[in-house]
Amino acid sequence: MTVLGLLDEIASVGRDAGTGGYRRFAFTRDDAVLAQWFAGACAARGLDLTVDRCGNQWAWWGDPDAAADAGDPGVVTGSHLDSVPDGGAFDGPLGVVSALAAVDVLRGNGFTPSRPLGVVRFVDEEGARFGLACSGSRLLTGAARPDVVLALRDAGGTTYAQALQDAGLDASAVGRDEATLRRVGAFVELHVEQGRLLARPEVAAPVGAASLIRPHGRWRVDLTGRADHAGTTLLADRQDPMLDLARLVLAVRSQAERHDTVGTVGKVEVRPNAVNAVPSHVSAWLDVRADTEDRVRAVVAGLAAQGFAAVEESWTPATPLDAGLTRRVAAVAGGPGSPVPVVPTGAGHDAGVLALAGVPAAMLFVRNPTGTSHAPDEHAEPDDCAAGVRALAAVLADLCG
Amino acid sequence: MTVLGLLDEIASVGRDAGTGGYRRFAFTRDDAVLAQWFAGACAARGLDLTVDRCGNQWAWWGDPDAAADAGDPGVVTGSHLDSVPDGGAFDGPLGVVSALAAVDVLRGNGFTPSRPLGVVRFVDEEGARFGLACSGSRLLTGAARPDVVLALRDAGGTTYAQALQDAGLDASAVGRDEATLRRVGAFVELHVEQGRLLARPEVAAPVGAASLIRPHGRWRVDLTGRADHAGTTLLADRQDPMLDLARLVLAVRSQAERHDTVGTVGKVEVRPNAVNAVPSHVSAWLDVRADTEDRVRAVVAGLAAQGFAAVEESWTPATPLDAGLTRRVAAVAGGPGSPVPVVPTGAGHDAGVLALAGVPAAMLFVRNPTGTSHAPDEHAEPDDCAAGVRALAAVLADLCG
Repeated sequence: MTVLGLLDEIASVGRDAGTGGYRRFAFTRDDAVLAQWFAGACAARGLDLTVDRCGNQWAWWGDPDAAADAGDPGVVTGSHLDSVPDGGAFDGPLGVVSALAAVDVLRGNGFTPSRPLGVVRFVDEEGARFGLACSGSRLLTGAARPDVVLALRDAGGTTYAQALQDAGLDASAVGRDEATLRRVGAFVELHVEQGRLLARPEVAAPVGAASLIRPHGRWRVDLTGRADHAGTTLLADRQDPMLDLARLVLAVRSQAERHDTVGTVGKVEVRPNAVNAVPSHVSAWLDVRADTEDRVRAVVAGLAAQGFAAVEESWTPATPLDAGLTRRVAAVAGGPGSPVPVVPTGAGHDAGVLALAGVPAAMLFVRNPTGTSHAPDEHAEPDDCAAGVRALAAVLADLCG
Repeated sequence: MTVLGLLDEIASVGRDAGTGGYRRFAFTRDDAVLAQWFAGACAARGLDLTVDRCGNQWAWWGDPDAAADAGDPGVVTGSHLDSVPDGGAFDGPLGVVSALAAVDVLRGNGFTPSRPLGVVRFVDEEGARFGLACSGSRLLTGAARPDVVLALRDAGGTTYAQALQDAGLDASAVGRDEATLRRVGAFVELHVEQGRLLARPEVAAPVGAASLIRPHGRWRVDLTGRADHAGTTLLADRQDPMLDLARLVLAVRSQAERHDTVGTVGKVEVRPNAVNAVPSHVSAWLDVRADTEDRVRAVVAGLAAQGFAAVEESWTPATPLDAGLTRRVAAVAGGPGSPVPVVPTGAGHDAGVLALAGVPAAMLFVRNPTGTSHAPDEHAEPDDCAAGVRALAAVLADLCG
């Protein structure tokens, strides 16, 4: 089965007819359909499925516990199936279907792994529903506290704990899962590139490896005013937080330019959000990433100097992936004498969470012709996807051979 | 029963525990509770309740059809019970409970009307759910086309027609209602002032009358960009409509200052509204009002010159209330030789819709100490509310005597 054939099998799940984008959010009905599809695809390949304490699915070729006991734990590949609102078809799913397709390639070649080979589907990588990215891997590794995550609420007021229960999972079991982690000797995540480094004419590579995940943080800025009637309150008498939002958005742009970062106000909540009412309150969320942590912090400090107090909601330090594993992955993926390019990325990934927790982790990127991601027209060419599967299969054969 | 006692009876209906504000939206369960309460309060006063083709409730003391046949139609007072999101307790309900309290005063005085006296509850004055203010009175008078209104959708996708049906009303009957309109010889609406003209020290009047409703309009501005990953797309490569929103908000403020209007961006919709995605689309709603229509139009023209195309969603011309009726109302409300002040207002009202349709209409305002309205802390002092009831009762006795 080709990558595109596998993507086709889930093409209709969680797709918004209006935008053409995906709205696959953690622990929803669509997410359950995807979990069931993943379980079926693993069963069809003879892989043994387990679900960890945090809801992530792991499918093994070989006995991961025996290997862990022997001090030579397995090699895992995979990614996530959830999406941002109106996301594309590739961010996440390409890594999952490429993992399955790589298993097919290895089986077709008569390969038998000498170390166990696992395929993983992490839950809630995007954090679209509860606001915390990579919650599945962060809970698994203990990077996020269960009590904090379980209390998060979605826009409808449902807690993370309730959503887990509704999805048939046990909220009381959530937390760092040693039994699962000890099975993972290395993790290689394939992902569509979310930028255009591989697509630059001077690079023009269908596949690359990731050097590091840039540091990034999310902040919330609460802007408080006073609700008033839009028709009767003189301009001079108003405390209108929408004006503060306007100044904040422009300040973020100018601070980001000054400090050579990317900076985005992508999410806004206005209360009461009525045409004829001066808002009482506006909250804005800020996403900043750069090559160095200092630059990211400088943007937030610059905003503070302009009077905008930003509350940190998440912080991910610069995350170097495993240098030795990355060299090996790049060399094997490119073939003798021509390692694939190694490029940084500004996007967070479960691979980064595992790397921070001490799991040797690497990433393969498939070229993205426009760099567009988190959008319905996110795209990767079929030939490049096929090259990604070949590269991943070669890497797995090398690591498990 | 005092005005505050009557307001207490509905104090808990549709109240948000978090904000303390009201969220009473048309044709919802809360709205049904309010309709039932109104019917009960009218029945307790021996008034005969009818519901017009558009869902507005009318309760009569006397036979309105016989009076209309005789060429001397009745006098109606009342207002609405719905609210903006997180609105106050007075905007709308004060006019309804003051009407009921005035009936109590007249009955207590042994008064019997020589013309029928009606109390009305208009539906959906605020337009919070479907976006069209005064839909109940606009449909009643034919100022709004039934097919257009019935097709409006709320945020959940429910049409106005479906909402009517869900509330037990007949959507197919909606339209200009001659049988109801011919019963109305005059309409006097009491309302909390939504500004501070009566509260100014040099005025200091508990009650006033309205001279005119200022012209106002609502526009939508659609800002389109391109969805991109917030972590990987260079600033220079972005088309970020949030930046356009910021420029629009500041442009609205500066155009409003230049043309001596009020101008508000109170409602915003961001797609996909995710922390880690550059938005693909932002819609902003604009509310502009002034003393003259030219000034309102000048703001929109100024925005167009700055590149912001605004789509008109509603337009209400300057609405003079009935001059003769207003003089009489002001004189009677104030007592011999001391008419109450007559002040303009920037807020729209059902009285304005009826005035535009040719019904002689006037308004009484009760002083608002801070001018705050469309907000949880909207307030009127108990003494001023009582003065409002006395003024309204005197006016009704005069008009129906």
